[in-house]
Amino acid sequence: MIPRYSRPEMVAIWSPETKFRIWYEIEAHACDAMADLGVIPKENAEAVWKAKDVKFDVARIDEIEAVTKHDVIAFLTHLAEHVGSEEARFVHQGMTSSDVLDTCFNVQLVRASDILIKDMEGLLAALKKRAIEHKDTIRIGRSHGIHAEPTTMGLTFARFYAEMDRNMNRLKKARMEIATGAISGAVGTFANIDPRVEEHVCEQLGLEAEPISTQVIPRDRHAAFFAALGVVASSIENVATEIRHMQRTEVLEAAEFFSMGQKGSSAMPHKKNPVLTENLTGLARLVRMAVVPAMENVALWHERDISHSSVERNIGPDSTITLDFALSRLTSVIENLLVYPQNMLDNMNKFPGLVMSQRVLLALTQAGVSREDAYRFVQRNALKVWETGCDFKGELLADKEVVAALGVKEIEAKFDLGYHTKHVDTIFARVFKD
Amino acid sequence: MIPRYSRPEMVAIWSPETKFRIWYEIEAHACDAMADLGVIPKENAEAVWKAKDVKFDVARIDEIEAVTKHDVIAFLTHLAEHVGSEEARFVHQGMTSSDVLDTCFNVQLVRASDILIKDMEGLLAALKKRAIEHKDTIRIGRSHGIHAEPTTMGLTFARFYAEMDRNMNRLKKARMEIATGAISGAVGTFANIDPRVEEHVCEQLGLEAEPISTQVIPRDRHAAFFAALGVVASSIENVATEIRHMQRTEVLEAAEFFSMGQKGSSAMPHKKNPVLTENLTGLARLVRMAVVPAMENVALWHERDISHSSVERNIGPDSTITLDFALSRLTSVIENLLVYPQNMLDNMNKFPGLVMSQRVLLALTQAGVSREDAYRFVQRNALKVWETGCDFKGELLADKEVVAALGVKEIEAKFDLGYHTKHVDTIFARVFKD
Amino acid sequence: MIPRYSRPEMVAIWSPETKFRIWYEIEAHACDAMADLGVIPKENAEAVWKAKDVKFDVARIDEIEAVTKHDVIAFLTHLAEHVGSEEARFVHQGMTSSDVLDTCFNVQLVRASDILIKDMEGLLAALKKRAIEHKDTIRIGRSHGIHAEPTTMGLTFARFYAEMDRNMNRLKKARMEIATGAISGAVGTFANIDPRVEEHVCEQLGLEAEPISTQVIPRDRHAAFFAALGVVASSIENVATEIRHMQRTEVLEAAEFFSMGQKGSSAMPHKKNPVLTENLTGLARLVRMAVVPAMENVALWHERDISHSSVERNIGPDSTITLDFALSRLTSVIENLLVYPQNMLDNMNKFPGLVMSQRVLLALTQAGVSREDAYRFVQRNALKVWETGCDFKGELLADKEVVAALGVKEIEAKFDLGYHTKHVDTIFARVFKD
Amino acid sequence: MIPRYSRPEMVAIWSPETKFRIWYEIEAHACDAMADLGVIPKENAEAVWKAKDVKFDVARIDEIEAVTKHDVIAFLTHLAEHVGSEEARFVHQGMTSSDVLDTCFNVQLVRASDILIKDMEGLLAALKKRAIEHKDTIRIGRSHGIHAEPTTMGLTFARFYAEMDRNMNRLKKARMEIATGAISGAVGTFANIDPRVEEHVCEQLGLEAEPISTQVIPRDRHAAFFAALGVVASSIENVATEIRHMQRTEVLEAAEFFSMGQKGSSAMPHKKNPVLTENLTGLARLVRMAVVPAMENVALWHERDISHSSVERNIGPDSTITLDFALSRLTSVIENLLVYPQNMLDNMNKFPGLVMSQRVLLALTQAGVSREDAYRFVQRNALKVWETGCDFKGELLADKEVVAALGVKEIEAKFDLGYHTKHVDTIFARVFKD
Repeated sequence: MIPRYSRPEMVAIWSPETKFRIWYEIEAHACDAMADLGVIPKENAEAVWKAKDVKFDVARIDEIEAVTKHDVIAFLTHLAEHVGSEEARFVHQGMTSSDVLDTCFNVQLVRASDILIKDMEGLLAALKKRAIEHKDTIRIGRSHGIHAEPTTMGLTFARFYAEMDRNMNRLKKARMEIATGAISGAVGTFANIDPRVEEHVCEQLGLEAEPISTQVIPRDRHAAFFAALGVVASSIENVATEIRHMQRTEVLEAAEFFSMGQKGSSAMPHKKNPVLTENLTGLARLVRMAVVPAMENVALWHERDISHSSVERNIGPDSTITLDFALSRLTSVIENLLVYPQNMLDNMNKFPGLVMSQRVLLALTQAGVSREDAYRFVQRNALKVWETGCDFKGELLADKEVVAALGVKEIEAKFDLGYHTKHVDTIFARVFKD
Repeated sequence: MIPRYSRPEMVAIWSPETKFRIWYEIEAHACDAMADLGVIPKENAEAVWKAKDVKFDVARIDEIEAVTKHDVIAFLTHLAEHVGSEEARFVHQGMTSSDVLDTCFNVQLVRASDILIKDMEGLLAALKKRAIEHKDTIRIGRSHGIHAEPTTMGLTFARFYAEMDRNMNRLKKARMEIATGAISGAVGTFANIDPRVEEHVCEQLGLEAEPISTQVIPRDRHAAFFAALGVVASSIENVATEIRHMQRTEVLEAAEFFSMGQKGSSAMPHKKNPVLTENLTGLARLVRMAVVPAMENVALWHERDISHSSVERNIGPDSTITLDFALSRLTSVIENLLVYPQNMLDNMNKFPGLVMSQRVLLALTQAGVSREDAYRFVQRNALKVWETGCDFKGELLADKEVVAALGVKEIEAKFDLGYHTKHVDTIFARVFKD
Repeated sequence: MIPRYSRPEMVAIWSPETKFRIWYEIEAHACDAMADLGVIPKENAEAVWKAKDVKFDVARIDEIEAVTKHDVIAFLTHLAEHVGSEEARFVHQGMTSSDVLDTCFNVQLVRASDILIKDMEGLLAALKKRAIEHKDTIRIGRSHGIHAEPTTMGLTFARFYAEMDRNMNRLKKARMEIATGAISGAVGTFANIDPRVEEHVCEQLGLEAEPISTQVIPRDRHAAFFAALGVVASSIENVATEIRHMQRTEVLEAAEFFSMGQKGSSAMPHKKNPVLTENLTGLARLVRMAVVPAMENVALWHERDISHSSVERNIGPDSTITLDFALSRLTSVIENLLVYPQNMLDNMNKFPGLVMSQRVLLALTQAGVSREDAYRFVQRNALKVWETGCDFKGELLADKEVVAALGVKEIEAKFDLGYHTKHVDTIFARVFKD
Repeated sequence: MIPRYSRPEMVAIWSPETKFRIWYEIEAHACDAMADLGVIPKENAEAVWKAKDVKFDVARIDEIEAVTKHDVIAFLTHLAEHVGSEEARFVHQGMTSSDVLDTCFNVQLVRASDILIKDMEGLLAALKKRAIEHKDTIRIGRSHGIHAEPTTMGLTFARFYAEMDRNMNRLKKARMEIATGAISGAVGTFANIDPRVEEHVCEQLGLEAEPISTQVIPRDRHAAFFAALGVVASSIENVATEIRHMQRTEVLEAAEFFSMGQKGSSAMPHKKNPVLTENLTGLARLVRMAVVPAMENVALWHERDISHSSVERNIGPDSTITLDFALSRLTSVIENLLVYPQNMLDNMNKFPGLVMSQRVLLALTQAGVSREDAYRFVQRNALKVWETGCDFKGELLADKEVVAALGVKEIEAKFDLGYHTKHVDTIFARVFKD
């Protein structure tokens, strides 16, 4: 994570302040539950809430940790400074550090998910808006980077919408994967703590109790979580790649918005670089690179080891911050994307009418011309267009054999763009379900 | 994929025979739908079903492909040899090769998923059986490979059950991700084919119609699919790692079943190697390595390119065949795992009673001893156990200060294993939901 | 590996026949060394060479393995069928299966490297030839997919040459990484076999003796090997991506060769798809996906475990076969690449003269015009070109302020393409070192 | 990168201060070369060196960048504040931002390499020292985690030394891969700058001039660089895994040093966790995860795009900082590793003498006993040891058939540990080459 590619709301989730706040809530709710169960005195549980509005002093906690060499103990010591050491003496009773750390990490991932889901809502809205706007904007569809048959810019936005809609589901499922907490004590047997404490704390924090933990929450959950982010990132790369292609000089069917203040560009109008989508391409790789280590983290030794920790300290913040930034940047790119419908038509007509050759071929065979002859007819006219830039329809209308087979009206009909757009509404209804 | 790590049922899904059979069904159902829509004559659609029971001749199709240089055309030519070329002339009308290839690939992935789901059922059954069998088999829980506190072998099996149960859900969701088909023609506009054909074919094949495709089915679906397999594989590595640890000479709490016919072992009883779980560790890496390329496949150029194809021709069969084999092998390992409860006890008591030191420490502080003193009391006795192998409880009972603080009965109570197993039933109820 | 993407010479390296042949050589050379050391009788060592010209019967060995459940023992049994069981009784003495398997694997990787190095020679020759051919073929250089300044097609080929030349070095180093053998017995202590046997066998096979092995050859070597292949594959993707871009309809500066027999294309000249380079893009991913598992293979448990084996049984053949195929395919693509110099000029002049705007800007500031004014002068003329397609030079010559600042001759000079190609020879001399 | 896993010297390389300092040197040396070539006035070149001892003001540069939106321009503007805007007006002439950025990045990577190489020297020294110290410390070699045959702890250290020595070579080669600079201007044609400027700057900075660049330095170099770091990291995981195994409660042949001040451990001597090597296991994953994105960065579009940049802004610092920290931590772990020779012997004798069973088997067959009988003899005695813990040698000496076949002296001889260590010196001579 580097500041340049991060946004404050997501960064805040990963701040020490947030972490200590969550630790506090875990401990305080656990005290409540223990008090309810009669394990600790009610007044001690209540006393913990005295620190409810405290903004914990990170520097002070660091100072204590420098002595205790243990982050959770340092925090508890500091908490006692607020609550009173007598009142605080039952805090954390029967718990292990992992109970706090793992539950906290999942709370952070849940909150990060919530932001990502909100981001995705924004992206979906932008894509839908642009899809509707350009529903009928004709452009050439391309397979292999080569002109194929006409489609519309709206369909391009619509397919990105559909893909991001699937990603929305994946994010929501990913959120569910890690929305669990564990307060199960050493090796997860609840020997020193009642399972009802875990249930209470989890409920208060909006988590499910992990059915079975082993001091740590099982890491297949996190592997699934980061894998989902990797898929979302790959879709971002997909959209970014489309835009980078559209903006290249020879194509220029769309361009990232370029504020007039940006000097370089106004002097050199041809040098408007798709730097945002190029950047998104790189950010996608960064999010994706967390997937394999998260999977390597699954096989901990016996009830737990700590090998996953250094990985997660990095990929937890890095992947969510980067993905948040990328989703937000992509949304802005989509919202402000400059679309050039005339260029789309010009490109499609680079070899005038040639994109209809397949359709003519089909018509010829349907009209009873043998496959070999049909090929020959189309080929001789297509090559002229290819070589001289003349109009394909014109050539066909001047080709006696073609006219004999299809008739003038039928030939004309084959160049009707409506033929290619007639199901756009059907597809839109499927995608936008309305 | 290599024969040594594959099972026939899964391999069959990826055979040319199966592929051609699916192609046939796609084409035949498409004809039905087109006939219903009045696009082609009913009798031509019916004629296609003449080939219903034909086992397509792969060698013959290869022969034709050597001439036509196109696999789908070769197949259609061969199909015409069965159906009659006149009757077959409407087959594939308005469709592209991708309509057939992509829909077929997803049918294969769906069938592969069904096998994987069945495999997982078997594994879950085995894990549950062994969990119940060893619910109360005491063993030491280990954090960092170091003895921590007692747990039971049943909890170990139960946590693998819970993890694999999550993987079952992931497999089911993965299956849904790729259970779509597309018959949308060039660049996916349905220009040459009615969307209702796609709907009919998909329904017949047990698929959803892809809401929006672009000649190809969007590859974020496949990325999510292979990512799910990667998570499952990582869990297999997790279980395998546990067993490898349990079988090592110094631990020997469990061992892969070893048939008496296996010579090497009978002469050298100490040389029973956990080769199956080591193999599973490697197989997990093989399944996992498909995840990143599947994600790299998402960003196709414009409406489609063919860069994903060579990747999928490999990882499609390889990942599913390897995972099927691995799940099956793991099931067999679990079913037949030799468990050595006495060794578990012996290991736990390597330093007799020492695993209870934390509990004693807690009891001392709860009894009002200062944290510093409690540490000192525990430490001096623990070190004796560590150095001489004497019994911790005995030492504590001989330590006046400890006895003064806790009393004999309380000290005895701290060594009750029931303390650690008292919530096993609770956990089992959570995991097995019954 | 699938047949479609493989070539026979490389496939043969990984055949059972080759494997058994290498095993044989290892065993026979080991016998020689042991006989020289007086450990086994000379006549027994000599007898082994009776099988020198035998083509081992894979089916027979499989048959024996079905009984013995051990591949090396099965081979030795079969060898004894040729040599005589009395004569063969000292074969493999003091050795472990790993001595044979690991040394054999490295021999196979060395041979695979030799083919890859030969492939790379072919690719380098092709790139050099095309570089020289197009040394002066002007095309527009592009940053961010946007026209920047002129360069030449020869420089494009030259940079791929330079990159592949570095890859040649990487392949040679990779070959050295795995060109070692080990005959060190159980856990690698040479307890049962003299180190001089290892030295002799390695020398005969063209390997270095592994300085220290532990029954297995250390796997960091293989990680480095597969990582090198991954870098080479990434460069293949780089070249493939350039060609895919050049072939897209709007650019069309080059195209993969398309034999006239290929039907589709002749009827639809605009539908010549860069399928070979798209395929190479996918193949690059396949080679690259072996890198991480090869790295995960490094951390074996203690002296050895077998977790790496299933990985290597796959990636050994798959990565080398795929890379061989890819290098060969790329060489053919380069040799036969259709280059369209006129289209290059046409593309460069899409906005006539505009690519020179930066140079004009520089000239203005060098002539003493303030940065702000220079921008303004360039901008007002550039925008006209951008919007109307008129000629930039013409506009400048008609702009009084520009003419006043630079003079007509200077303006003309700024549009001299020789300015951009003046150092092509320098660069060629650096790259081709001649 | 997070502070917890970083060391100041490496972090400093990636600071803005260092970056600006390197930019400055590139610009200043470029001015010198341009002055020598007569392209700019000598006095302007000299004036730039006025800023030689300036510590550039990062906040001020950021301030300017907030206006100019361009980092290099912001720096140049700030530089002019020190040098004088008149004197500075030729700075950067004919250059592009990439000339500065890419050359600077490589300078940083070279410096990072130098630290990593120094780290590796330290690690090698530590490994060698411990290898010599424990050259003859007997421990059991293990295959598959199972006791195999005796080896020595010195050989374990020696093999890690040999592996790290190979990694040293890989680091040195990796350094060479990226020790190039480029000052070649837009699209790399040297149109606006003489190639001799590049040569001078590179020489001054200890780099080679990149033979052919395209505004950017080709990224196959960086892919190779990060791949090499990934291999080194995998070896770190390998050593870490060995230590984690050795420290587990049941094995306890070695342990990470534990200062007495660390409270937890002194009260619970059995709870000394191998947290450093577990941490190293995770750090290895972090370094490794950069390999694939670095490879994905190779295929830039045409002469350059900026997709690699966000990736490198992260993995450049992160991978080198993490690897530096990991190498340093591992060195400390090795230097201070507690080795327990007595436990090694105790473990080896868990089943007294049984590790010699293979050797006895071999001796029996060499003495003319049939393979079947030999197995039977060994088996019946081995099983007794396995089941009762009696001494294998004792059993053999009491077995008439074994004694008849081998004789008492020969049986005794088979239990001589010197047999297994006789080639340790040979291996040490190979590894340490002295």
